[in-house]
Amino acid sequence: MIKTDILIIGAGPTGLFAVFEAGLLKLKCHILDALPQAGGQLSELYPKKPIYDIPGFPEVLAGDLVDNLMEQIKQFEPGFTLGERAETIEKQEDGSFIVTSNKGKKFHAPVVAIAGGLGSFEPRKPLIEDIEFYEDKGIKYFIKNPEKFRDKKVVIAGGGDSALDWSIFLSNVASEVTLIHRRNEFRGALDSVEKVQELKNSGKIKMITPAEVVGLNGAEHLESIDIEENGAHRTIATDYFIPLFGLTPKLGPIGDWGLDIEKNAIKVNNALDYQTNIPGIFAIGDVNTYPGKLKLILCGFHEATLMCQAAYQIINPGKKYVLKYTTVSGVDGFDGTRKEAPKAVVKAIV
Amino acid sequence: MIKTDILIIGAGPTGLFAVFEAGLLKLKCHILDALPQAGGQLSELYPKKPIYDIPGFPEVLAGDLVDNLMEQIKQFEPGFTLGERAETIEKQEDGSFIVTSNKGKKFHAPVVAIAGGLGSFEPRKPLIEDIEFYEDKGIKYFIKNPEKFRDKKVVIAGGGDSALDWSIFLSNVASEVTLIHRRNEFRGALDSVEKVQELKNSGKIKMITPAEVVGLNGAEHLESIDIEENGAHRTIATDYFIPLFGLTPKLGPIGDWGLDIEKNAIKVNNALDYQTNIPGIFAIGDVNTYPGKLKLILCGFHEATLMCQAAYQIINPGKKYVLKYTTVSGVDGFDGTRKEAPKAVVKAIV
Ligand SMILES: Cc1cc2nc3c(=O)[nH]c(=O)nc-3n(C[C@H](O)[C@H](O)[C@H](O)COP(=O)(O)OP(=O)(O)OC[C@H]3O[C@@H](n4cnc5c(N)ncnc54)[C@H](O)[C@@H]3O)c2cc1C
Ligand SMILES: Cc1cc2nc3c(=O)[nH]c(=O)nc-3n(C[C@H](O)[C@H](O)[C@H](O)COP(=O)(O)OP(=O)(O)OC[C@H]3O[C@@H](n4cnc5c(N)ncnc54)[C@H](O)[C@@H]3O)c2cc1C
Repeated sequence: MIKTDILIIGAGPTGLFAVFEAGLLKLKCHILDALPQAGGQLSELYPKKPIYDIPGFPEVLAGDLVDNLMEQIKQFEPGFTLGERAETIEKQEDGSFIVTSNKGKKFHAPVVAIAGGLGSFEPRKPLIEDIEFYEDKGIKYFIKNPEKFRDKKVVIAGGGDSALDWSIFLSNVASEVTLIHRRNEFRGALDSVEKVQELKNSGKIKMITPAEVVGLNGAEHLESIDIEENGAHRTIATDYFIPLFGLTPKLGPIGDWGLDIEKNAIKVNNALDYQTNIPGIFAIGDVNTYPGKLKLILCGFHEATLMCQAAYQIINPGKKYVLKYTTVSGVDGFDGTRKEAPKAVVKAIV
Repeated sequence: MIKTDILIIGAGPTGLFAVFEAGLLKLKCHILDALPQAGGQLSELYPKKPIYDIPGFPEVLAGDLVDNLMEQIKQFEPGFTLGERAETIEKQEDGSFIVTSNKGKKFHAPVVAIAGGLGSFEPRKPLIEDIEFYEDKGIKYFIKNPEKFRDKKVVIAGGGDSALDWSIFLSNVASEVTLIHRRNEFRGALDSVEKVQELKNSGKIKMITPAEVVGLNGAEHLESIDIEENGAHRTIATDYFIPLFGLTPKLGPIGDWGLDIEKNAIKVNNALDYQTNIPGIFAIGDVNTYPGKLKLILCGFHEATLMCQAAYQIINPGKKYVLKYTTVSGVDGFDGTRKEAPKAVVKAIV
C-alpha cells in the first residue's frame, strides 16, 4: 500500500503542477497514470507541436512544457505509478480513501485529486480473434521500455505518427521491423514520412502496404501473424506485434465512483475549491466541468493551485495557512534542496 | 478619444496576458497604467528577482516574465497609455463606458477590465514644503526617459534598490549625480551597493550621508535644494531632484466607481466570469476578491482568460464562440503575422 497526502490520478500538466503547489504547502503527492509516461495529452498526442497560449511562453513545444514541469516538481519528489489505471475507490471510516489500480496496487490518501483529463487513454484495439489472449504475450499497445525489443522481430501496424516514429526508433533496436498499413499513404510529420521512406530504401524497415493483420498464432507466446494483402493471405514470423491505431480517452471506472457527472466530465464547485460532490475528492483540469469551463492547460494550473489550499485544510484541520510568495520565501524541496532569491544586503558606503 | 474593445486598467502580468486571450477572440485591447512601464509589481518592485511558481518555469526572473508576456502579445498590437491613472468612469446609454485619466485622456470601450493589482502605484513623497509646486519643474518620482537628464545635475534621495540602481545608471548620463540618504547603510543587491561604492571612489557619484533634503528653491524651475547634514544646513545647486522612497499602491479613484469593495479589493463573480456588480466591468488579478482568492500571478492568467470569453459575449451578443486550440488552429496576429504548428502531411511511402 502506497501512502501519501494527495493521490493524484493523471500525470497530465494539471496533475504535475499540482505536485508543485502541494509541495509549497508541505504536502506529498503520488501520481497514478494509465499511460507509460507523464504529460497526458501533451506527451501522448502532440509532443512535438508548439503551444502558443501558455502564459509567458510565446511558443513552447508540448514535450518541452512537460519536461519543464517535471523539472519544476522534482524538488518535491512525487511518487509515480505509470501504466496502471485507477479502478475503484473506497472511503475509509476516517474519511480517507483507498484507491485500487487495475493491477491491484493500493493507494491510501486523505485527499484524492482526479486530474484525469479526457479520461484514461485506452488503445484502439484491432478486431482480431484471440487478441486478448496474446496481450502481454507478444501484443503491445504501448512501448514502455524499447529495450524489450532488442534483437527481436517486431511488426508494427498503423498509419500515423506513432507508427512512423516507433518504426524509425525500433529500426535501430530490433533485429527486424515490419510496418503494415492498410493504405500506401501515411499521415504524419513530413520528416518522419521521409525518414521511413529512406529506411525502407536501405532495407532497414520492411513495408507491407496496403495490408491488414487478420490472425495471430502461437501456443504460449505470439509466434507469427496472418496478413491479408490484396486479397491474398500469408503468414510471417514475429516476436512482437504492436498495433498503433491511436488512443481513445475513456472516463472509465471513475464514472462509477458516485461523482456527479455531466457530459462525461465531473462537476465541481468552481466557486471555491474544485471539490466534487464527495468531500475529499477534487477534480481539476480537463476532467472537470462548471459554468464557463475552458479545457485549457492554463486553467488546470489555477484549479490545481486552489485545490491544494483546500487539501491543506483537510489534512491540517484548523491550521491557518498564510500564503507566501516563492520569490520572498524561497522553495524548500523534500529532497533537502532550497531555491531562493539572492538576499538584499544592508551595507554602508563609506 | 481612444476607442477599443476592452480597456484594460493595469499593465501587470494579468492585464498583459488578457491582451493575448482577447486577441485569440479577435478583440482589441488598450492598456492604461499609472506607472511609466509595463509589468506592474514585477517591473516596479522585483524585476531582478526569480519567481519559482510560474507553471512551466522552474525559475524565471520577474523582468524576463514581463518581457516574455510583451513578446507573446506583440502580435495583437495593444495600445499603451503609460504614466496616467484611470480616474473616472461614465456608463453610456448603449452600455459602453468612457474612462478618463488624471491627465484628461478619454477611453471608450464596451468592456472595462480592471487589472489594477494592489492599486495604482503612487510615490511616497517626502514632506518638504512646496514640493507639489516643483513637480514637473525639477522634481521627478519616476524616471520615464533617462535622456531627460543628459548633462544635467541630478540629486537622488533614498536608500534602496531604486536609488542605487538609478544613481549607477545616471552616472553615465547626467553631468553630476549626488546620492543623499539619511543613513550610511544602503539596502539592496550586493552588487549594486558595491558598484555605487566604486563609483563614489572614482568620483562619478557624490554621496551625502547621513543627510536629508529639507528645502527646495527656484523661481520657475528647481534651482537648488537645502540639505541638513549632522545638524548643519547647506544649499547645493541642481537641475533635478529625484526622491525614490518607494511606492505605495492605492486603489484610489476606482474605489469610488460604485463597485462592491471588500478589504480594498473588488468583489467579483468567480463562479462564472470575474464580472463585478456593474455589468461590463470585470476585475482580474490581485485587484479582485472572492472566496478562496489567492493573489498569485498564475491565478490572474486564468481569470483573464475566462473574463475574455464573457467580454466576447458582450461585444458579439448571441454569437457562439467555439474554443480553438492554438496548437491546432494557430494564432493570427492583428499585425498580419501568423503562428502555426507545422502541418502533418499525407504521403505515400513507395
Ligand atoms: C491536438 C491538441 C492540441 C491542443 N492544444 C492546446 C493548446 O494550444 N492550448 C491549451 O491550453 N490546450 C491545448 N490542448 C488541450 C490540452 O492538451 C489539455 O487541456 C490538457 O492536456 C489537460 O491537461 P490535464 O492534465 O487536465 O489532462 P490530460 O493531459 O488529459 O492528462 C490526463 C491523464 O490522466 C490519465 N488518466 C485518466 N483517467 C485515469 C485513470 N482512471 N487512471 C489512471 N490514469 C488516468 C490519462 O491517461 C492522462 O495521462 C490541446 C489538445 C490536443 C489534443
Ligand atoms: C516582492 C514580491 C514578490 C512576489 N512574488 C510572487 C511569486 O513568487 N509568485 C506569484 O505568483 N506572485 C508573487 N507576487 C505577487 C505578484 O507580483 C502579483 O500577484 C502580481 O503582480 C499581480 O498582477 P496584476 O497584473 O494583477 O497586478 P499588478 O502587478 O499589481 O499590476 C497592476 C497595475 O495596475 C496599475 N493600476 C492600478 N490602478 C490603476 C489606475 N487607477 N490607473 C492606472 N493604472 C492603475 C498599477 O500601477 C500596476 O502597474 C509577489 C509580489 C511581491 C511584491
